[in-house]
Amino acid sequence: MPARPYRLLYPLRTYLITSGSYPEEYNVMTADWVTVVSSQPFYVAVSIAPERYTYRLVKKHGEFVVAVPGWDLLREVWLAGSLSGPAKLRELRLTFERGRRVKAPVIREAVANLECRVLESKLYGDHELFIGEVVYTHHSPRAYDDFTPRPDLKVILHLSGNMFLSNETVVTSV
Amino acid sequence: MPARPYRLLYPLRTYLITSGSYPEEYNVMTADWVTVVSSQPFYVAVSIAPERYTYRLVKKHGEFVVAVPGWDLLREVWLAGSLSGPAKLRELRLTFERGRRVKAPVIREAVANLECRVLESKLYGDHELFIGEVVYTHHSPRAYDDFTPRPDLKVILHLSGNMFLSNETVVTSV
Repeated sequence: MPARPYRLLYPLRTYLITSGSYPEEYNVMTADWVTVVSSQPFYVAVSIAPERYTYRLVKKHGEFVVAVPGWDLLREVWLAGSLSGPAKLRELRLTFERGRRVKAPVIREAVANLECRVLESKLYGDHELFIGEVVYTHHSPRAYDDFTPRPDLKVILHLSGNMFLSNETVVTSV
Repeated sequence: MPARPYRLLYPLRTYLITSGSYPEEYNVMTADWVTVVSSQPFYVAVSIAPERYTYRLVKKHGEFVVAVPGWDLLREVWLAGSLSGPAKLRELRLTFERGRRVKAPVIREAVANLECRVLESKLYGDHELFIGEVVYTHHSPRAYDDFTPRPDLKVILHLSGNMFLSNETVVTSV
């Protein structure tokens, strides 16, 4: 199996994952490997490499937040995915605020934030898959109409490396 | 928790999942809840509701294929997601061909096909999460350049219900 066949499923949405339980501990990473698992109850799955600092924090606290960046946060997404350590947070133009039901922070500039508690996790190959129960959600009414994205919401899709693209805003009804 | 908060993660890519081990048994469904789990080995996760016919076939044979539709397959994706039973396959303008390493079929018109063997599965809420090991991949060199999507590849993103949109083909390098 050659280099990166997982790219056959790309472009994929990019999300931000926050962790930590107080401001000095807060961290943020980017994640393309995020999906929905169940509607009722609302569960998500996030795949995180064990060498990430986020991995340690999520293991420690059993909590994380999935923040949904609009296209305007592309610079922040790129920096969050390419820098590491405390320098990262200083560089980012993101405002971290306490979650409502978890201690991991929500990101004010994101169009939505999903507060998650880890239900369970398991290592598969080079990543650990975390199943999170979404215990609280926040979203911007400018971006969503009753939880459904407005057609003009521009989100971030990751192509590969430092290459990103967005969605069209023309909706086709079939 | 109100109606469909999982839509906060939308728009999401839509894929086709095939199952069955001989032509009369073949089936296909659409799935938005698909992600990568691990790079080496290459594992994917797919969430399938137990009431789906595909669920029974994947449980029975322990195999499935993730087929990646380009935007030109929008009609087929919609029909695969809204029809059911044998009538579905007759309506679809899709060509099913035997997989190389699994008995579930690959779709000739898809830009890529990932042949998967179920590593394990577990019920979470209203869906079962299948972890699949990708044992063989096919892709069109017109759509991908060494596994990376060409920027002009137009894929299908699901917004909600019968509403879909595509990606822009302008790539931003950061």
